Amino acid sequence: MRDIRVGVVGYGTVGAGVVDCLLRNGDLIAERSGIRPVVARVADLDVATDRGLCLEPGVLTADVAAVLDAPDIDVVAELVGGIGVAKEFILRALRNGKPVVTANKALLAECGEEIFTVAEASQTDVYYEASVGGGIPCIKAMREGLVANRIKEIVGILNGTCNYILTRMEAERADFEEVLAEAQRAGYAESDPGLDVDGIDTAHKATILASLAYGEWFGMAPIHIEGIRQVTLQDIAYAAELGYRIKLLAVIREEDGGVQMRVQPSLIPVRSLLGHVDGVFNAVWVRGDTVGGTLYYGRGAGRDATASAVVADIVDVGLNLRYGSHRRVPAFRPHQGYERVVPMQDVRTRYYVRLQALDCPGVMALVSGILGRLGISIASVTQKEVNQPSVPMVILTHRAREAAIREALGQIGELAEIVRPPVMLRIEDVG
Amino acid sequence: MRDIRVGVVGYGTVGAGVVDCLLRNGDLIAERSGIRPVVARVADLDVATDRGLCLEPGVLTADVAAVLDAPDIDVVAELVGGIGVAKEFILRALRNGKPVVTANKALLAECGEEIFTVAEASQTDVYYEASVGGGIPCIKAMREGLVANRIKEIVGILNGTCNYILTRMEAERADFEEVLAEAQRAGYAESDPGLDVDGIDTAHKATILASLAYGEWFGMAPIHIEGIRQVTLQDIAYAAELGYRIKLLAVIREEDGGVQMRVQPSLIPVRSLLGHVDGVFNAVWVRGDTVGGTLYYGRGAGRDATASAVVADIVDVGLNLRYGSHRRVPAFRPHQGYERVVPMQDVRTRYYVRLQALDCPGVMALVSGILGRLGISIASVTQKEVNQPSVPMVILTHRAREAAIREALGQIGELAEIVRPPVMLRIEDVG
Repeated sequence: MRDIRVGVVGYGTVGAGVVDCLLRNGDLIAERSGIRPVVARVADLDVATDRGLCLEPGVLTADVAAVLDAPDIDVVAELVGGIGVAKEFILRALRNGKPVVTANKALLAECGEEIFTVAEASQTDVYYEASVGGGIPCIKAMREGLVANRIKEIVGILNGTCNYILTRMEAERADFEEVLAEAQRAGYAESDPGLDVDGIDTAHKATILASLAYGEWFGMAPIHIEGIRQVTLQDIAYAAELGYRIKLLAVIREEDGGVQMRVQPSLIPVRSLLGHVDGVFNAVWVRGDTVGGTLYYGRGAGRDATASAVVADIVDVGLNLRYGSHRRVPAFRPHQGYERVVPMQDVRTRYYVRLQALDCPGVMALVSGILGRLGISIASVTQKEVNQPSVPMVILTHRAREAAIREALGQIGELAEIVRPPVMLRIEDVG
Repeated sequence: MRDIRVGVVGYGTVGAGVVDCLLRNGDLIAERSGIRPVVARVADLDVATDRGLCLEPGVLTADVAAVLDAPDIDVVAELVGGIGVAKEFILRALRNGKPVVTANKALLAECGEEIFTVAEASQTDVYYEASVGGGIPCIKAMREGLVANRIKEIVGILNGTCNYILTRMEAERADFEEVLAEAQRAGYAESDPGLDVDGIDTAHKATILASLAYGEWFGMAPIHIEGIRQVTLQDIAYAAELGYRIKLLAVIREEDGGVQMRVQPSLIPVRSLLGHVDGVFNAVWVRGDTVGGTLYYGRGAGRDATASAVVADIVDVGLNLRYGSHRRVPAFRPHQGYERVVPMQDVRTRYYVRLQALDCPGVMALVSGILGRLGISIASVTQKEVNQPSVPMVILTHRAREAAIREALGQIGELAEIVRPPVMLRIEDVG
């Protein structure tokens, strides 16, 4: 049995969850793993609020140095979040030779390379299971469980707030703004929701998964990002009629040696597993060349789910300390895997297009003529019967190039018979 | 970089899949993990059949000693299967101090303790990811990813053959025998299908998962096992009308300190994720006290999916060899976790009951009277309208004790108005 003295930085929701889990299940974890994680020190500026947990005297401190610089701390759990002091704390711990466990996807996505370089120089570990998919052990699955695979495709529902909003919009036939306001009141969305609803948080997680799959720490630059603010109830309803649901998806896909990386509200078949991931849950579909399609599902955020992943990392670090196997699975290891990032305009997928057209003869001929000239093949057309001068028309295409569909929609939007800018969403037939 | 010389025993379907994967993706695996697995020797009685793979001269041998006893083999992959020579091979390799990777669930379920004792005496490793869920890294998830959790519940679809048969029965409205014969022709079922359709294979996997969750190597004795031979098209159709699908489930569930362990064809909600696991796919639902519900999905069998898991284990063994961290995650470590196995008669769940009753007044009163006196509460009743002297009647109950429902069905079956033995299936509202 090896005691591992854990120093927690950040005693907020997740920090308290980690401490709670260690106090509650510490004996079981020790019996199971041979590693006994001891809550040795917890640093937070707020040492007054009662978190309802019973810490030994002297454990809680406002002095972060008592964690980061203390010789009696074996591993640092950075649970402050954000890109500010968190980075400083992590780098300081690593420079002190202390392994770090973190849930900080934004920081890893933006500054991963710098952090990993310092970790390498100190020959120590950075583990970050909780950064993607909350409690779902999907990073371990990607790096270890699927190590034998060339990854062909990752499609993820990675942001609980967006998934909650889209699920409620569909269930209650309510508009985005209305559901967002309700989600904010219920605590499922931040008062500044941009990080979530604009797709940034999903992109943070997507770039981490893409980097692990394809061997280069990509950062945020190559990812095409669209959020869910433009998703309308109307499109959710039409998609449902056609057998699809709209989800904010991270799509990372190898094609012809290139890799697509994009975050977009997309249609997925209602009969797929991903189509059944509702509310605040997350799921990651990973297809490998050897294993085929696999899926990992669970709570993507929240105090306890995140704590589950953080504690698993603490045990991995503990085992590395026990066996002197630091960097057994290093924070990141570059490797072969892809030739180029596919620019968004070259991405090929299927499309959902909604047009608002004057109810007069010949419109369909004009629209299909434009699509046809640009090599876009139509899979289905539904024209809605409404007693209005203009009618909605929904077109699903076969696979087409993004540049072609954009050009087509530009031309279609200029037709006199089309009364509003066309709406376009991608269709992903996976999972 | 560390070369790991792999000796494969059994060059059948899975053995060839492992060799193929190592030859195809060996460079990528090496870059990713720092471990280069080298196909050093492959032993099989059949050295004549062309598997379409290009082995170096001298690698293929009919002499199993050239793998098990050879000083230049670092790890043995036992891919013979079955409980006969496979056990002998594994024990011999372990006694020679060689770590073993195996996909052999039957052997582990039946003789795990003996194998683990020898592994412990030799201070070496046994890894067995491929034994449950084929390519799905669910054992790694259970042992490492969810190490922080008390496991509250595991519900698995663990046998591809049964799931294929049930899926086809529903899709084609065909009887069990008909679909089984077709599955045998298509190679999805063995000529002797008992291991699959009688639930034995599912139970082998269930006992492995239960043992890892609850800290005792249970073997097969405590598991209540029912197969799918009695599942009728009629019940599949009625279940569908009520919003359920019938799947062969392994259910391992903690309740009041006890653990239920059972394999039974069961109704699960059509809207659940498990309800969407079709064909030869497997899925495991694991609910932990900290993480909540999680699910792992993928191909539960087959050459390449199984190879993916075997190779992941080879890399883990390789890392242990590289860092001298043998038994970092030992084959099995007993721990606290439960008080007793709940006898089947004390299990409480919901029930689906189908009766064939004479179409005369008062039958429902008799039936509901019996259920009521035994404390079984009815959730819904559907009586089918058919122009026959007897009519089918489908009852869903609220949670009840198995002993009570059995007693009730015994009494109901003796009623003059009930013309055939009652049919009973469990309902699991999870996943």
